[in-house]
Amino acid sequence: MQTVMTKRPTNQFMENQMFVEHKLLDHGHIILTDYSGDEASIIENARISYGGGLRKELNNADKFLLRYLMRNHHTSPLESCNIKVRMKLPIFVARQLVRHRTAKINEVSARYTELDNEFYIPAEAIIQPQSTTNKQGRSGQLTTNQKLIIQELISGAATQDFCYYQALLGKKDISSDRYNNNFNKLVEDEEFPGIARELARIGLPLSTYTSWIWTIDLHNLLHFIGLRSDSHAQYEIRVYSDVLFNMIQGWMPNVYQAFHDYRMDAITLSAPEWKIIKHLLNSNDCIPALTNQLKKAKISEREIKELIAKL
Amino acid sequence: MQTVMTKRPTNQFMENQMFVEHKLLDHGHIILTDYSGDEASIIENARISYGGGLRKELNNADKFLLRYLMRNHHTSPLESCNIKVRMKLPIFVARQLVRHRTAKINEVSARYTELDNEFYIPAEAIIQPQSTTNKQGRSGQLTTNQKLIIQELISGAATQDFCYYQALLGKKDISSDRYNNNFNKLVEDEEFPGIARELARIGLPLSTYTSWIWTIDLHNLLHFIGLRSDSHAQYEIRVYSDVLFNMIQGWMPNVYQAFHDYRMDAITLSAPEWKIIKHLLNSNDCIPALTNQLKKAKISEREIKELIAKL
Amino acid sequence: MQTVMTKRPTNQFMENQMFVEHKLLDHGHIILTDYSGDEASIIENARISYGGGLRKELNNADKFLLRYLMRNHHTSPLESCNIKVRMKLPIFVARQLVRHRTAKINEVSARYTELDNEFYIPAEAIIQPQSTTNKQGRSGQLTTNQKLIIQELISGAATQDFCYYQALLGKKDISSDRYNNNFNKLVEDEEFPGIARELARIGLPLSTYTSWIWTIDLHNLLHFIGLRSDSHAQYEIRVYSDVLFNMIQGWMPNVYQAFHDYRMDAITLSAPEWKIIKHLLNSNDCIPALTNQLKKAKISEREIKELIAKL
Amino acid sequence: MQTVMTKRPTNQFMENQMFVEHKLLDHGHIILTDYSGDEASIIENARISYGGGLRKELNNADKFLLRYLMRNHHTSPLESCNIKVRMKLPIFVARQLVRHRTAKINEVSARYTELDNEFYIPAEAIIQPQSTTNKQGRSGQLTTNQKLIIQELISGAATQDFCYYQALLGKKDISSDRYNNNFNKLVEDEEFPGIARELARIGLPLSTYTSWIWTIDLHNLLHFIGLRSDSHAQYEIRVYSDVLFNMIQGWMPNVYQAFHDYRMDAITLSAPEWKIIKHLLNSNDCIPALTNQLKKAKISEREIKELIAKL
Repeated sequence: MQTVMTKRPTNQFMENQMFVEHKLLDHGHIILTDYSGDEASIIENARISYGGGLRKELNNADKFLLRYLMRNHHTSPLESCNIKVRMKLPIFVARQLVRHRTAKINEVSARYTELDNEFYIPAEAIIQPQSTTNKQGRSGQLTTNQKLIIQELISGAATQDFCYYQALLGKKDISSDRYNNNFNKLVEDEEFPGIARELARIGLPLSTYTSWIWTIDLHNLLHFIGLRSDSHAQYEIRVYSDVLFNMIQGWMPNVYQAFHDYRMDAITLSAPEWKIIKHLLNSNDCIPALTNQLKKAKISEREIKELIAKL
Repeated sequence: MQTVMTKRPTNQFMENQMFVEHKLLDHGHIILTDYSGDEASIIENARISYGGGLRKELNNADKFLLRYLMRNHHTSPLESCNIKVRMKLPIFVARQLVRHRTAKINEVSARYTELDNEFYIPAEAIIQPQSTTNKQGRSGQLTTNQKLIIQELISGAATQDFCYYQALLGKKDISSDRYNNNFNKLVEDEEFPGIARELARIGLPLSTYTSWIWTIDLHNLLHFIGLRSDSHAQYEIRVYSDVLFNMIQGWMPNVYQAFHDYRMDAITLSAPEWKIIKHLLNSNDCIPALTNQLKKAKISEREIKELIAKL
Repeated sequence: MQTVMTKRPTNQFMENQMFVEHKLLDHGHIILTDYSGDEASIIENARISYGGGLRKELNNADKFLLRYLMRNHHTSPLESCNIKVRMKLPIFVARQLVRHRTAKINEVSARYTELDNEFYIPAEAIIQPQSTTNKQGRSGQLTTNQKLIIQELISGAATQDFCYYQALLGKKDISSDRYNNNFNKLVEDEEFPGIARELARIGLPLSTYTSWIWTIDLHNLLHFIGLRSDSHAQYEIRVYSDVLFNMIQGWMPNVYQAFHDYRMDAITLSAPEWKIIKHLLNSNDCIPALTNQLKKAKISEREIKELIAKL
Repeated sequence: MQTVMTKRPTNQFMENQMFVEHKLLDHGHIILTDYSGDEASIIENARISYGGGLRKELNNADKFLLRYLMRNHHTSPLESCNIKVRMKLPIFVARQLVRHRTAKINEVSARYTELDNEFYIPAEAIIQPQSTTNKQGRSGQLTTNQKLIIQELISGAATQDFCYYQALLGKKDISSDRYNNNFNKLVEDEEFPGIARELARIGLPLSTYTSWIWTIDLHNLLHFIGLRSDSHAQYEIRVYSDVLFNMIQGWMPNVYQAFHDYRMDAITLSAPEWKIIKHLLNSNDCIPALTNQLKKAKISEREIKELIAKL
């Protein structure tokens, strides 16, 4: 891909990511095709509150400010940065992703075009029973044999559905065993022109791969990642989210770290819980030890002050 | 359902619609479960521009104003009215509906709960070949026999997929023919606990019915209807859109008529097209006839003036 | 205001609020003019995930679920409830409110209509110096005399600006002292027709009152309240937010309490902070005491389990 | 500003625009500080419907497709392009701009920082009386003398308001005539520390300049321009909209032309109007002449077919 000169904020990590195919699941991928902004852009947007001017090189005070913005949910400056990626993903994953309504999406249309013979078959390692504690998750073990049978069943059914899809489209030269009577009748009926694509596709399984171009701003991307790189998210969407989170690590290292510290790995204590913990810490004379430890952990003076004030 | 007293804007047509099940396709439905606002609410919102006060009974001037608002795309007052409906719909239709991002949705989760054995099988009348002129549509005829075969094929495949779904969930008492080896092995394996719901569902077809609660404001609902009650929309989403459009006809008759006149049935001429038509009308001395006809057609003085001005 | 029968979810507290004028600041107000939904509606939306049916009376399990939803940020069911209020508010407050982009607004237009002679003059109690610790706040004391002078200065300037506004609009019978030469010239110039309203208004102060109708869903309303009933919000917007928060207290008491416990009064500890506090609690053998206290505080078993798991 | 290499879609016109200050009104400006995408990006997003691959050079078929997309309101591919600009603008203009809710904004905060002594004073040419036909517009003439008086009045009042602002902030060395008693008292009161910025600013006029960074996608930018470069928009916002529209002309010439032809300069005929015009054209045997003229006007075969079909 050719490179040209630009005056726009440019990030070397993201330039190296451009057009790189991150392979996911068995046939999926994420490919970065555009981005805008960097940490210095965020700072420019934040500092205009104080009358700040054009974007400059990032300095140490800026890094503190980035953490401050994340800590205090002042994320509107992040909305000025965008990424655009091509994604190939199973439809049941796409159905979860599309609920993030601030993303802009253009998708392959099965009304316009025939879909490919590509389906998601879960890898052995991630085929698990229903979790008994997590109503929406999986956990526990199956035997290797069970998992092979499951893979074959899913794969066989998807293949069969795709043959039916082709027969419904009026294809005659379908290279597969004939599956059943009705299938045979359609394939052998010289007069059958096929039905409309928009109808033929309704029998395809939710594991069918689709493709789209997904454009989203950084604030909403982090919100997405907070939900979808979480341990409660379905494995198959988590891998997409994780690739995007890794991109942010290279693109915006300070934002990434702050998002970990103040969002992903942070803990929220309810008002009654905090009251009790505060009391316990106070009655055990833990405050001096706490202050000491916080300093050792290189937590900023400002954050220490904020926390002690709350105690 | 009990009724209680309210001071809120209340519309008799919509009260009669409450909890009525509009059946759609073979297993689908729309059920109105809440609404807010009426034409007088829209007028209140519009008239605050001029310093207008609280909502009053709708008068004739208000009806003209409703048409004026629609004609000139001043639709922000429509955003203050909402409807909330339960919908049961095939997943491939849900995938189109969800693209209307301003709707608020809560949907059955196949991670939490097992889906029902309900699939969309197109009725004979609407099984058609791919349109040759419309890349995304259907047109033309098939024989009755062909259509029966197609229905059986789609129905058989969906039933099969659902049996596999149950087998993957670890069910043992599946009342159906045994379909294939792998299916049999799972059903007969006493030790097989089933796999997680979130995985088992990936083989279900796009014709599977899902349910959700859909809340949307009137401005965005009309935008949705403009696209989805259009002849280019897929039949299976159009029937949902049409039910909603009919609701609007009863709820907001003036808005409905204006939406027809100025949006659905209106025509937009490009700048170059209009230039030519203007010239033709002028050079054929059509203006007096035109004015005359417009008056006979009971087009308002204001609109006639606007149109003649453009000529 | 007349009352009629409805089948819609209806809330007695909100019915009593309908059309009640909540006076705010010196000339402002909030008036509820419509609402939709209640806590049972939220539950209906939440329970459809599990295939739940139509809205029923709220039971105890529902109350726990409401708290669970708030604790875990599963707030999409809240999006199906709406309120619509009329607000009268100073323009500088409106400028902050309008940044909450999910609200739907229709506002008085100073292009269409002349604004009234109403300006916000801060009450004595809330005239304070710039805070030295909070860059965006006020704190400290002034003398009563200073505050009176300030009020008079602000009031006099606003009155003057309004006289100029009238003069620019071409009014001749302005009942006020003549302020300066140019003002006199305009008022005495019989030929001066006034300038357009859209231009004349540009000299009015930010303290001028405007009015609008504001419609917002409950999820976004709580987000608004979280930011604007916060101690860092400007006093003059906080009073508006507080009135709305009080409405929620009557309308949705469980949501209100949960929002306090898990959002407003909760505390978020960063990953490093939590690590240290966890260590201190463990090394001081506080866990048994903590569990004990949590139980006494009537924190639910589920929450206690969640918290202890994190320790 | 340094330039670096990028693999991103890059547009030479926009590169030349980067950091160029477009001066507007008396103190305003627009400065482009980032952008993403170009016409080939839009095509990439559009063509993924048909399974299209990565962005390529724009060809002739693409240019037709761009026009087709605009004609048929298939504007979602435009959402993947963004611009980011710094704007300096009077507050009454900002109040109109902020209503376009899809833009992302970071603005100077008068709570954090003191505003500058800059106000909008309308130029002579655009000081006009209230329009008698357009309730929200201006038209007609004033004498040069009247306009000078108006400018002086607006300018004098703004200067006065700014002096009060400084006095309220506790400034002592205000280089201006003393305006009135209360002003004098504050300035001479050595003990007066000033009041908080968030309070002092409420007396500033709506003509005060503010600054912000505005990020918006191309679809929403065009929607904004359609409303704000319209002759009904207030002159002072139209000049901002026009600068952005000119940028689009250089950046996306085919989109720009299509937006003119199918939106800005197009005409929409209501259903009843079109019925009458159709009849007149038919009864005057205008169709052959029309077809002929359309061809001469180089309207595409497809569009001619579409139009004739409607007749």
